Amino acid sequence: MNRYIICAASFVLLLASCGSHEGNTSNKEVDTFPYDIPYEKPDLELSASMEALYDRYGVPIPQQNELYTQFRFSPITGFDYDQASGKVTRRDPSRIIKVDGIYYVWYTLRQTDSAPLGAEACNDTIPSTDWDLSDIGYATSKDGFNWEEKGIAVARPSSPQQGHRSISTPEILVWQDKYYLYFQAFSEASGTSGGDNCPVAMAEAPTPDGPWQYYDDIVIPTGKSGAWDQYSIHDPLPVVFKGKIYMYYKSDYNKDMGQVRSQGVAIGDNPFGPFEKSALNPVISSGHETQYFRFKEGIAAIATRDGHEHYTVQYSDDGINFYQASICDLMPEASGLYDPDAFTNVEYANGITWGICHINNYSKGKTYSSIFRFDCDLSLKLDDPEMKVNHVRPTYEEYMRHGLSAKQRARIKGEMRQ
Amino acid sequence: MNRYIICAASFVLLLASCGSHEGNTSNKEVDTFPYDIPYEKPDLELSASMEALYDRYGVPIPQQNELYTQFRFSPITGFDYDQASGKVTRRDPSRIIKVDGIYYVWYTLRQTDSAPLGAEACNDTIPSTDWDLSDIGYATSKDGFNWEEKGIAVARPSSPQQGHRSISTPEILVWQDKYYLYFQAFSEASGTSGGDNCPVAMAEAPTPDGPWQYYDDIVIPTGKSGAWDQYSIHDPLPVVFKGKIYMYYKSDYNKDMGQVRSQGVAIGDNPFGPFEKSALNPVISSGHETQYFRFKEGIAAIATRDGHEHYTVQYSDDGINFYQASICDLMPEASGLYDPDAFTNVEYANGITWGICHINNYSKGKTYSSIFRFDCDLSLKLDDPEMKVNHVRPTYEEYMRHGLSAKQRARIKGEMRQ
Repeated sequence: MNRYIICAASFVLLLASCGSHEGNTSNKEVDTFPYDIPYEKPDLELSASMEALYDRYGVPIPQQNELYTQFRFSPITGFDYDQASGKVTRRDPSRIIKVDGIYYVWYTLRQTDSAPLGAEACNDTIPSTDWDLSDIGYATSKDGFNWEEKGIAVARPSSPQQGHRSISTPEILVWQDKYYLYFQAFSEASGTSGGDNCPVAMAEAPTPDGPWQYYDDIVIPTGKSGAWDQYSIHDPLPVVFKGKIYMYYKSDYNKDMGQVRSQGVAIGDNPFGPFEKSALNPVISSGHETQYFRFKEGIAAIATRDGHEHYTVQYSDDGINFYQASICDLMPEASGLYDPDAFTNVEYANGITWGICHINNYSKGKTYSSIFRFDCDLSLKLDDPEMKVNHVRPTYEEYMRHGLSAKQRARIKGEMRQ
Repeated sequence: MNRYIICAASFVLLLASCGSHEGNTSNKEVDTFPYDIPYEKPDLELSASMEALYDRYGVPIPQQNELYTQFRFSPITGFDYDQASGKVTRRDPSRIIKVDGIYYVWYTLRQTDSAPLGAEACNDTIPSTDWDLSDIGYATSKDGFNWEEKGIAVARPSSPQQGHRSISTPEILVWQDKYYLYFQAFSEASGTSGGDNCPVAMAEAPTPDGPWQYYDDIVIPTGKSGAWDQYSIHDPLPVVFKGKIYMYYKSDYNKDMGQVRSQGVAIGDNPFGPFEKSALNPVISSGHETQYFRFKEGIAAIATRDGHEHYTVQYSDDGINFYQASICDLMPEASGLYDPDAFTNVEYANGITWGICHINNYSKGKTYSSIFRFDCDLSLKLDDPEMKVNHVRPTYEEYMRHGLSAKQRARIKGEMRQ
């Protein structure tokens, strides 16, 4: 009998042919780990790494991992950046929604007379950071590559309303045929009080084209004194799950002894809240502008650049307990996903294949950000082997661009002669 | 009492000041996860991700993870590649050793009249693959950046001796004041029998400059029929550990249903073996040209481009049970490490800070590989904050170089209009 050909219900080809493999002499019983990798954990003593292979990932064959993907990037048209002067920025795109055949995306839109010049030099018209003196812009597209900017969706309000200095980093929610935008609302220039701390405001509209009603409610309050999220609630992102709104957010903590960024969730039953924070927060240890999408019975997350488990896709059955599902490379930053099931409350979702992300173009006195597109295969419906290749190949020039600093060169020169 | 300030013995600053923090009112007792991250797992109900943070990594603060690093790359001098004609290749560098103040590295050296043209077109002077018709070359350096090629260390032998077609992918062992090179030994052009399967041969010398005595012993035999390593033993790499030689190797399996690459180990007490394979093989599920170095009481591994746990550093106390210790980006490929404790049999090792790696320069009819240097901070003795930054920043051009294929563009164009 062949011990190691195990028919996994999810693997149709093997399932169909499994009976005929019984007694197949080309697959001998062995007491070492077998050449044909078992689909389920075999009854063998395994090393810790092979235990993890079976315990941590849904399938032992890497290229069959539905939550592993490469990311491929494309320019998008329709956006003018004033010849990279730094006076125009577009960043932190929201998830994308499709309404009547038209794709919509919202983003931080800054159009100022100057590039950001820091907290010291900023004034009423000079921004401190790249997301200072901003409004929420939006654009539409029929094909996801060519976009038309429709202008400002939500303008920052007048003083003294919360957000009168800048509103940024929008996320969209569709709930009971209405549209809600959540965003960070600054009443002072970011950085001028030593931090980037701000509450979240929101806006509501009957259509994705508006008109938007502004609310300066505090959607998620900061935690009590001593709690991990006592200072900041960043990047609120609502997902409809189990009939409720799971509002994910980021907070920064442990700043004095080495900053840590983690993700929390607060759950509510309507767009205005209240949202009750999970007692298990933080729910993801890592990630920066973390993105979430409905996947199978649960929620998957793209955890990007911060933390021990940066560069991973995480998965949770319950929206609260997340597990590392894959490790990826060249991930999009601050991405907004096209997740067709973000707000449908389906029991089983297929995942995502594209989105919009941003890049920060740092240049002294000309810093700005721009948005572009990525495609991927984090979908049960798509099977693109090019996206499942296990390895992104950098060029020699890319390696060399990540070279030693002058300080490092000096240190190493000394060490090499020791 | 403050529940959450826990003094970890490894964290000297906190340890020194811990007594004075007792009763410090700035760190209030909270029933949510605290702002000052506990160094040891707190007595709180935690989410799965925070459980993993404590169970999987030595320290909860990412930038204090001794096995996380960025890699920074530098060109090296002293090697001529015949103007990138494809006729000269240097690849798969060995670990580097230092003898009498001089650094030594060995590598696959191909100097042929033609670039590799594939198994169909190869003959006695035209190579099939980039590592066909090769010898083992070597070079020395005083500073690790400027090298002098010393020529061929081990030439491929005459027919019919094993390896007469090509020898490649060398690794060095220093054992009882003698030097041993292990390498893949081909008696036919790689690819001509449908695979890249070859045994391992070895050479011995009294000094790193030779003279080298060639042995065509099979150091690690392939596994029995049906075993995961029944076809290939690649990249043998010896580490001296607990008084024995731990010979790590790679094998490819499950080729018909989706290839998997994993790492095994075989343990011997002298350079000629026999080496007994671990009953727990494979010991690392992932990685391609995996590198190993002595670290603390155990062995760490750099697992590069293949498998679920590609792009990770792994750690094992016993050399057999490895655990994911970090996730990295822009890792060097086919690296050879400067590990000063690779052969010293120390009980506690400090780790590594640099090495040599290669890049494959693919170009139709001109394919070759070249070697260059990387630096990192995978060392207990080094503390370089620049290497601990959690995030490698690609440029817009780098993203765009990883764009959609024509096939993908056509598929996506259709999907977007649905």
